[in-house]
Parts: sequence; C-alpha cells; structure tokens
Amino acid sequence: MQLIDGKAVSAQIKKEIAQEVGEMRKAGMRAPKLVAVLVGHDGGSETYVASKHKTCLEVGFDSDVIRFESDITEAELLACVEQLNNDDSVDGFIVQLPLPKHINEQKIIEAIDYRKDVDGFHPINVGRMSIGLPCFVSATPAGIVELLKRYHIETKGKHCVVLGRSNIVGKPVAGLMSQKGYPGDCTVTVCHSRSENLKEMCLQADIIIAALGVPGFLKGDMVKEGVVVVDVGTTRVPSTETKSGFRLKGDVEFDEVAKKASYITPVPGGVGPMTIISLMKNTLLAGKKEIYK
Amino acid sequence: MQLIDGKAVSAQIKKEIAQEVGEMRKAGMRAPKLVAVLVGHDGGSETYVASKHKTCLEVGFDSDVIRFESDITEAELLACVEQLNNDDSVDGFIVQLPLPKHINEQKIIEAIDYRKDVDGFHPINVGRMSIGLPCFVSATPAGIVELLKRYHIETKGKHCVVLGRSNIVGKPVAGLMSQKGYPGDCTVTVCHSRSENLKEMCLQADIIIAALGVPGFLKGDMVKEGVVVVDVGTTRVPSTETKSGFRLKGDVEFDEVAKKASYITPVPGGVGPMTIISLMKNTLLAGKKEIYK
Repeated sequence: MQLIDGKAVSAQIKKEIAQEVGEMRKAGMRAPKLVAVLVGHDGGSETYVASKHKTCLEVGFDSDVIRFESDITEAELLACVEQLNNDDSVDGFIVQLPLPKHINEQKIIEAIDYRKDVDGFHPINVGRMSIGLPCFVSATPAGIVELLKRYHIETKGKHCVVLGRSNIVGKPVAGLMSQKGYPGDCTVTVCHSRSENLKEMCLQADIIIAALGVPGFLKGDMVKEGVVVVDVGTTRVPSTETKSGFRLKGDVEFDEVAKKASYITPVPGGVGPMTIISLMKNTLLAGKKEIYK
Repeated sequence: MQLIDGKAVSAQIKKEIAQEVGEMRKAGMRAPKLVAVLVGHDGGSETYVASKHKTCLEVGFDSDVIRFESDITEAELLACVEQLNNDDSVDGFIVQLPLPKHINEQKIIEAIDYRKDVDGFHPINVGRMSIGLPCFVSATPAGIVELLKRYHIETKGKHCVVLGRSNIVGKPVAGLMSQKGYPGDCTVTVCHSRSENLKEMCLQADIIIAALGVPGFLKGDMVKEGVVVVDVGTTRVPSTETKSGFRLKGDVEFDEVAKKASYITPVPGGVGPMTIISLMKNTLLAGKKEIYK
C-alpha cells in the first residue's frame, strides 16, 4: 500500500507556481491577483479564506480579502461582484460559500464573470468542462485528478466508482474520469444515497472516489484487493485525542481499507491540501490568460 | 416484452403541444417561432430541417428556414446568429450541424443567445443541466427520459448503463439519469470504446441506453432477463429490402435482445421521433418564457 501524500504534492505544486510567478515578474508582468469575498463570520469560512490568502502570498500572488457583515443585502453583494468583474487588476475572485440564507447563492455565482470564476462554479465553466473545452475546473475535482496524475496511476479502461453526486465533487469528478485522455478514459459509475447495489459496485471498482460526506462509510469488506482509494470526506467527529475536541474523519474506514488498497489518500493530508493549491493553479491560469483571453 | 413506441408517444406529445399553442393564441399571445439555419446541401441535414419545419407547422408554431450556400464565411454566419439573437419575433433557433469545415462549430454554438438555444448545446445550458437548474435540455437525451416517463419505467436505485460518452447523447443522458427525482436516481455507469469490462457491466444493467453508433453492438448474451433497452443508434446499413438500398440499424441486435428485455425501443420508431418532438417542446418553453425570462 502506498499513501497518496496530498501535502507533499501540494507543496511541490506550490513551488512550481511560485517559480512561474517569479518568471512572470522577471518578464515585466504583474503577479496574478486573487480576491476572496467573505460574508459573515462562519468559522469554517474564516479558516478557508485565511488559508487561501496565506497560500496566495506564499506563491507570490497579490491577494485581497473583502469582508462584509452577514446583514449585507443581495444587491450590495451583487454590486461588489460587478465591481470585481470590472477591475482589471483582479484576475480571479471567489465568493466564499455558504452565504447567509437571504442571499441567493446561485444568483451570485452566475453574476461572476466566468473568465474570473476561478472556483469553476459558473454554469459556463461547468458546461465547458462537460463538453471537454478549456475552462476553470473546480478545485476539489481538479485536485483529485492531479493527485492521480502525480502518482502515475493508470486510469484507461479502469472502473472508477464515484460515491456521491454533488455539484462540486461527485458530478464533475465523474465527468473528468470518463473524459478522453489521461487521467480519464475510465468506465465511471456514479453511486449515491439511492443506489441499491452500492457495495457490489464498490467491490468491482479499480478506483473509488468517496465523496458522500458520511464518515467511515467505505469499509474493508466493500473493496477489492489492489483498489485505488481517494477519500474526499472531511467530517468533524468528536475526539478525545485533540485539544479542539474533534478531528477530521473521511468517508473511508482507513485502517480496514488501507490493508487492501494499492494507493490511498489519508484524511487529513490527502485531497484537502490539493483543493487550495488547485485554486491557486486556476488563479495562475487566469493571470496568464491561458483559458480565456 | 413491451415495445416502447416512440412514434405513438411523439404523436401524443405533438397533440399536447398543439393544444397549448391553441390556448396561447386564444389568450391573445402569438405562437412560438422556431427558425432553422441550414448551410449547404447535406442530405441528412436537408431531411432533418424539412422534418423540423413540417412538425413546427403541424403543432401551430411559426417556422422559418434560412438557407446559405456552403461557401458562407464564419463572419457572415455569426452575423446571422446575432440578428436572430436580437429578433424579438424569434423564440428559438437552431443552426443545423454539421457545418462546413472552414466554420468553427463551437464558436457558432456559443454565439447563440442561450435563452434561444433550443438545441441545448450552449455551455450555459449544458452547465445548468449538470447542476440541475432549469434549462434547455438537448433533444435526444430529453426524448429518452420522456419515453421512460411515459412508460412509467422505474428508475430509482436501478443500475443504468450508458454506452457512449458523446456530448450530445451519452454525457447528458448519464447526467439526467443520475439526477435526483424521477426519471432519475439511477446508479449510472458510462461505458465507451476504452472500457475494459463493458460486457460485464451490461449484464448487470437494469436499463441500457445504447448510443455508440455501432450497428448491432449490443447482443443478446450481453443483457440480463428483464432489462429495459433504449437504442439511440441510427446507422444506415445496406439493405436489399428497401427501395433506397439502405435501412436504419440501431446499436442493438434487436431480435436477440428483445427476447430478454422487458421494454425495448425499436429502430426506427423509438428514440428518433422523440428527438424532433423534444425540440418542439423546448420551443414551446421558449415561447412561453418558462425557462428564461
């Protein structure tokens, strides 16, 4: 069994991005700039945005965080989006989700100029990905396929089972894994809460991407010998071993499944670190105008 | 075995649409209008456009066909698209594919106002479908799920195998079958030319949607007893039994598979007639501004 070390891979990509930014500066270009819009004081959101901001600075990007209280109106937030759309110094920006209930998230997402939508949530980017056109692929699916690539894991003709059909992980990663080329060309099965034959499917899988958000869902007796397992789950569960009183647990019963797996991602330290670095990669592409002019 | 009669279903839907158009007129509204743009004289395209035009008139739509010779420039075609985008009397329009090689099809598709894109090929419609938002679903996948619905075929938790990963059939129908609700909630597997375990997969399937474009690909020994089979293939094969010297053959070896199937679509007379009627349905929705304002 080989551990897929997302922390190490993301550190390596961070170096690569920093080098590219250095070259951009040398060539007289300005560094890419990412802006994060944060509404309210949700603990998770605060942590994510702080971490994105920090990573931006580490790779040499310009970065800004725009904060609003949670009583901001939808119109005010839309005005902010519009301003960022029109600001030529901003290459990409994200509006950190979730938003307060009185704001229509989908409306905000669709107001973002798709050419600056480095989160890849705008329908144009989702649609272009589905068709196989250049686009911003959202961070978690992009991070997953990058991990498979960096570990040279064979995918062509393999059976990949995706657990979960969410818009931000399950659906897009299923699309990427079945696309032509590498990493892709898999036979892909999408399972979800309504699936009748989920265990049967998992037992046949060469690659399992678990994104249900159910801690410890995938057990040892549900996988075959040699399976490649990517665990996207990150649920907080109570723990007596940490100061905070909780720890992150993935969708995979790691100890059991690891015994049979050829490759497996840990939680934390697997897919997690890849997510932020994929956002950085998108921002780099936006800064270099490599996807859209 | 029950035959899924696409011809009868489409005739029924045609009636329903005609009735709605009648009600629109009674309410003082104008009838929906579809325009087809036809470039060159490809035999297949001529037939399709003529058939669409005829069906429009049958359901009471306004319909126009704009013809160009195959030496039209891309700029001229884009100007035509722009004009149709801005023409308030046109609810929906299609540019019949394929286009001559000197014209970038994707550029033309993306130039169409997504609110008039009744073919559902614009990335915004593709993306919105993937996310599960209201949109124009392209005609063939929409026709397939409509057939399953009209025959009350159970889909929840069932294993649906889609053969083919094309942008116009395989990918979108896979998305629809795995979406929440009915007809959907299937465990969906997408197989294609690179799949190693295709026969094995088909043998497990409760529903098979065959869209490979390989005549007679799905054989009797590849399906289980009671399977539901939807055949999207329509390849012209030589025939001594027809005046034209050819006949349409689906991806399914019908005689063998029909013996084991609970439901099966014939070719012709299955999915084919549903495609045009689904385009009519989209045009009706466009005319009534039910998807986009």
